[in-house]
Amino acid sequence: MEHIDIVPGFSWFGKNIGIKDKTLDFGGILADVPCQAAAVFTKNTIPGAPVQVGREHIKDGLLQAVIVNSKNANVATGTGGLEDARRMCRLVAESCGIAPELVLPSSTGVIGRRLPMEVIVKGAASLQDDFGKTERHLLNFADAIMTTDTRRKIMSVKVGNATLVGVAKGAGMIEPNMATMLSYLMTDAAIPSAVLQPMLQRAVNKSFNRISVDTDTSTSDTVVLLANGLAGAVDLEAFEAALQEMTVYLAKEIARDGEGATKLIELKVSGAKTAEQALLTAKSVVNSPLVKTAIYGADPNWGRFVMAIGKVFAYQVDVAELVIYFGQGAERLKLDAAMDMNEVPLDDISELLKRSEVFLEIVLGSGPYSETVWGCDLTEGYVHENAHYTT
Amino acid sequence: MEHIDIVPGFSWFGKNIGIKDKTLDFGGILADVPCQAAAVFTKNTIPGAPVQVGREHIKDGLLQAVIVNSKNANVATGTGGLEDARRMCRLVAESCGIAPELVLPSSTGVIGRRLPMEVIVKGAASLQDDFGKTERHLLNFADAIMTTDTRRKIMSVKVGNATLVGVAKGAGMIEPNMATMLSYLMTDAAIPSAVLQPMLQRAVNKSFNRISVDTDTSTSDTVVLLANGLAGAVDLEAFEAALQEMTVYLAKEIARDGEGATKLIELKVSGAKTAEQALLTAKSVVNSPLVKTAIYGADPNWGRFVMAIGKVFAYQVDVAELVIYFGQGAERLKLDAAMDMNEVPLDDISELLKRSEVFLEIVLGSGPYSETVWGCDLTEGYVHENAHYTT
Repeated sequence: MEHIDIVPGFSWFGKNIGIKDKTLDFGGILADVPCQAAAVFTKNTIPGAPVQVGREHIKDGLLQAVIVNSKNANVATGTGGLEDARRMCRLVAESCGIAPELVLPSSTGVIGRRLPMEVIVKGAASLQDDFGKTERHLLNFADAIMTTDTRRKIMSVKVGNATLVGVAKGAGMIEPNMATMLSYLMTDAAIPSAVLQPMLQRAVNKSFNRISVDTDTSTSDTVVLLANGLAGAVDLEAFEAALQEMTVYLAKEIARDGEGATKLIELKVSGAKTAEQALLTAKSVVNSPLVKTAIYGADPNWGRFVMAIGKVFAYQVDVAELVIYFGQGAERLKLDAAMDMNEVPLDDISELLKRSEVFLEIVLGSGPYSETVWGCDLTEGYVHENAHYTT
Repeated sequence: MEHIDIVPGFSWFGKNIGIKDKTLDFGGILADVPCQAAAVFTKNTIPGAPVQVGREHIKDGLLQAVIVNSKNANVATGTGGLEDARRMCRLVAESCGIAPELVLPSSTGVIGRRLPMEVIVKGAASLQDDFGKTERHLLNFADAIMTTDTRRKIMSVKVGNATLVGVAKGAGMIEPNMATMLSYLMTDAAIPSAVLQPMLQRAVNKSFNRISVDTDTSTSDTVVLLANGLAGAVDLEAFEAALQEMTVYLAKEIARDGEGATKLIELKVSGAKTAEQALLTAKSVVNSPLVKTAIYGADPNWGRFVMAIGKVFAYQVDVAELVIYFGQGAERLKLDAAMDMNEVPLDDISELLKRSEVFLEIVLGSGPYSETVWGCDLTEGYVHENAHYTT
């Protein structure tokens, strides 16, 4: 994005405090007033300490600040780790004169190590001075939450008089250090938490829950939406549409930036008997290592798609009805079981697979349901990065 | 294996007929008499044509021959493909003077292309002369069924007066419920089909269904057991024990030879509340790309194990009870959440992870259930092989 609108009534910071190296590793969001808030967290049954504290603090639907560190996830760290996450909230609260329960903590990075609290306490000594309301402050925050990301993920959009800004990190549904997908959304629209929460859940279900890099589910995934109300009421349908557009954009940015990935895959499965069949099939295909390596190699491998569709054991598929489209619009090319593979324009399909965005549609039959998911190819780069990441 | 015992009353062949290149691509098994037989096939809902024909032919519990080609899987090939599979059976039947319903066909290789039947008909012209009873004939058969395998997989064992010989192939698309995993087991023990079938199912459940290379389930997985009865009755418990030992051996050989793999992983999950929890957790860990790449890199990454255990959403795990052992016997080294990661002998654990066989045990708690699975590491070689495999 060239230009990012800031949201009135919010401040940000992002800086280096030396948790591991010299890159930005500590960031925060502070609203001028308590915000109506909504949040969605990881389904991993061993959630990180910050997720556990975040769940407590969001209960009343109110938040005023977010504090994030990268390089260490504070996961599987026991009661000491829980205390560290609470202490991070208190540091912000004391510095900024708000209640600790209004702070949501996040940590992302290596799992199983205690946070270096002496470094964090020192880094948080002058927080009230670190926060600022400029675009530069916002961009620093977006940079400070990155781990193996190769680029910043941020978007802003106007909804009536209100502004919605979203920031995300994640090089996949999971990263080498299992670090996590995090996203922070801020608006000055006035929307109560009770409305925001189901709206955010719907948006997440159609965006962040539709991407996959490697099937590994982080212990720390967190999406938070803060609404400070300064711009007054907005059209809720327009806001939800903007929210969905933004979360899909950020989700695609994460899939595109998947570990070692060279291309983004957008896969629609249609003609399904149920929504579940559409989603299970889409996930099975976009997660299949053999499909992902075929797309990396620009190989229009009909057989691997058939295999990945057929391993959804709960639904029977008639291969005679199966159609796979490669590309989109006028360029779309078709493969089905009735075609003679020796007469299919495999070279043209291969050309479509060489692009940085690969569009696929699988038609299962004549059912009414469809689902769209996003993923990335599987490359030597993914293996290299993850085999040699140091604990 | 240095020496392989042959089974009396069986003949084999393996040869090149030029389906794709000059390597062995056509093989068969022929018994002197109709055999009591049992078979287990893929759960993929789009099974190959040979699997569909095989299911019909095994129904009466009798088989006398097996015919296999590699280089082409005859999957997703419509009614023409079904007819090709039946024709392969007729070619053997006519050549060898038996009923076509006594022949089980298998094909493995590329999916979605019709078999080159003119090549196969020509190759099958003198089948009665190709079959022979020597170890060399058996080894040629074991070689002819390989695709991306780097080595032959074969074992023989004595049970009383009887001999049991097993042959297998498989190196990718391996999550057998499935490049396909094929295994042919032959014995001269006299055991009725009604006893063999549940015995084979139990053995497969503890062996081939406990391995995974890449979570992709082939459309062609087949395990067949033929008993010609020449050696008379045997102790059934001893036979089942031998069968289990053999299927576990062959399953491990497949996992060890996983595409691009540099090491075999044996993972036991114990202390589970249910057998399902033990198996789901073991599969989740052994299939996790981040665990597999960590083991490739000999990285004792506690965090990745915790993540993979926690993504089994159906069961709650208390991380305080979790223990991971690396290695086996006296060398075993332990990691748990209570340990200070800075004092753990990570270098010693890393040394254990550098071996060609990696032993792991995860203790989930104090439950009574355990399961063992086998897998392999994920390497640049897997990606390279599958990205550049030509359709």
